Amino acid sequence: MKVGDLYPEGRVSLRELGLRDGLQLTSTWPATADKMEWIEREFDAGIRHFEVGSFLPKSRYPQFADISQLIERIGLLPSAKSSALTMNERAVRDALNTQVDEIVLVVSSTEEHSLANIRRGRQASIDLVRHARIERDAANSMPVVNTAISMAFGCSISGQVDPQEVTGIAVACVEAGAEVIGLADTVGFAGPRQVRRLVQEIRRALPGIPLIIHLHDTRGTGIANAAAALDEGVRILDGTLGGLGGCPFAPGATGNVAIEDLVFLCERQGFDTGIDLEALIDVRVVLARSMPGEKLHGSLARAGAPKKVSWRARDSANSAALL
Amino acid sequence: MKVGDLYPEGRVSLRELGLRDGLQLTSTWPATADKMEWIEREFDAGIRHFEVGSFLPKSRYPQFADISQLIERIGLLPSAKSSALTMNERAVRDALNTQVDEIVLVVSSTEEHSLANIRRGRQASIDLVRHARIERDAANSMPVVNTAISMAFGCSISGQVDPQEVTGIAVACVEAGAEVIGLADTVGFAGPRQVRRLVQEIRRALPGIPLIIHLHDTRGTGIANAAAALDEGVRILDGTLGGLGGCPFAPGATGNVAIEDLVFLCERQGFDTGIDLEALIDVRVVLARSMPGEKLHGSLARAGAPKKVSWRARDSANSAALL
Repeated sequence: MKVGDLYPEGRVSLRELGLRDGLQLTSTWPATADKMEWIEREFDAGIRHFEVGSFLPKSRYPQFADISQLIERIGLLPSAKSSALTMNERAVRDALNTQVDEIVLVVSSTEEHSLANIRRGRQASIDLVRHARIERDAANSMPVVNTAISMAFGCSISGQVDPQEVTGIAVACVEAGAEVIGLADTVGFAGPRQVRRLVQEIRRALPGIPLIIHLHDTRGTGIANAAAALDEGVRILDGTLGGLGGCPFAPGATGNVAIEDLVFLCERQGFDTGIDLEALIDVRVVLARSMPGEKLHGSLARAGAPKKVSWRARDSANSAALL
Repeated sequence: MKVGDLYPEGRVSLRELGLRDGLQLTSTWPATADKMEWIEREFDAGIRHFEVGSFLPKSRYPQFADISQLIERIGLLPSAKSSALTMNERAVRDALNTQVDEIVLVVSSTEEHSLANIRRGRQASIDLVRHARIERDAANSMPVVNTAISMAFGCSISGQVDPQEVTGIAVACVEAGAEVIGLADTVGFAGPRQVRRLVQEIRRALPGIPLIIHLHDTRGTGIANAAAALDEGVRILDGTLGGLGGCPFAPGATGNVAIEDLVFLCERQGFDTGIDLEALIDVRVVLARSMPGEKLHGSLARAGAPKKVSWRARDSANSAALL
């Protein structure tokens, strides 16, 4: 898989992370058949990127036990792409035994968070990126190597994070073999100007490396931060259906930015997502049915798309009025 | 009252509209004593601008029956400012018999909405602005004349709205005597680029006229649109505590952008609001107690302000990191 095939240039790519980041924080999860329906119906609505889980011991992380089945299913959907988290050497090996299109490694912005979260320092995480790249280059399957930098806009343990330090980590990750870099506002600290500044710095330091913005809407700035990232040239955005996910540090708070709200934003900003928003919103019934105890968020599902105003980018009248 | 005293230049002013725009759409409302507590506690938290109601027949609009008492109460709070909607000649006369600091007239962006909403065309609304200005200039009390342009980013009846037409209406309102112009996304259609474009046009056409941005968060773009308006130089923003208000066209949808979320955004963007966010969030208990059936929205109340990260603009370390 070439990076340019995974994330075609000049288009917006929206990554559905509900099956991984969402289910990491919920207390229940859908049966495999429901996950399949979730994927298939989102695919029909136009979503092409699915992060389907994390390669972890099934005994401790039963919500991801079916990860290989989901990767196989996605492999049968034309132009759909699968992605999986690989947090250690074993996970990398397991992932490379599947046909997954992308593996995702995580490096914390701060040493304290890295040690607290995975009992591994940042350098060890960067070394894992290097290991993954070497293993990937030698493997039959050729997933793209993506590295997400967590707590990139502020850390729940260390507090303030210096953007230059984050940039340094991103550069080290690319030197170690990362082909895509994600910037994660893991606990929803960021504001739009902060997003602009960090994206500008990273793009200057790493021209040609595709950037992902991963936002949590914990404090209501998720969509504003997404708009700022789009303005600065970011074209790959993470989200989850219904904003599934929550925040481990603030019970009851919203989690990942809702992917259906991202669709509306992108279209309103003039980017044709190719996604049928109404059909996407309809997929929430699969989540509501299979995880009745989980609260779903998101504004578009409540209000619906505007009926009188043309809001889609492909409506040229709208684009002309907007841009 | 001089415009510069009502909205000091170089600072962000956040207008609490809950007592007017909020209560216009809720089915219950607080007793006068609860409204007083709402105002007093928000004042203690740092809010200075309160739109307290609309001068309308008390029999049909009992939620605004105590408007004059609220204006009097605010007159006793040092540097607090009161504002009231005046939708016809009689309302203007009644308002000028109080010590209200600002009167607000409304002109629709589209002729269809204007006729449907108030059975008066746009020219008649602009004529009312002229009438209000003449009456104001001849009166003892000297409220600022503010004119809000509703449906400025799209109309629930006519659909698409041409920004040049909105600009023309704004210019006509200022020629008729308006001293402040508000741009209202009445039903939450706008995206950030659209906000930027209209604000740029209006600022070009009306240099020196303070602009208010009035946003509804119906489709999740409220805070993103506020960020865009701040970027374009708008310094006066409307909101309601708990996002009180709803949407007449989408039952269950969020209404006005939550003022507590606006505080977080402004501070994160480097603007010192002078508002104690925790104290402001605490005022929600007054609403919850006095209107138990109304749903309150807003992200900050769910997640709380960040504890580890300094997010206030007056924290110079934060400003330096942000800007």
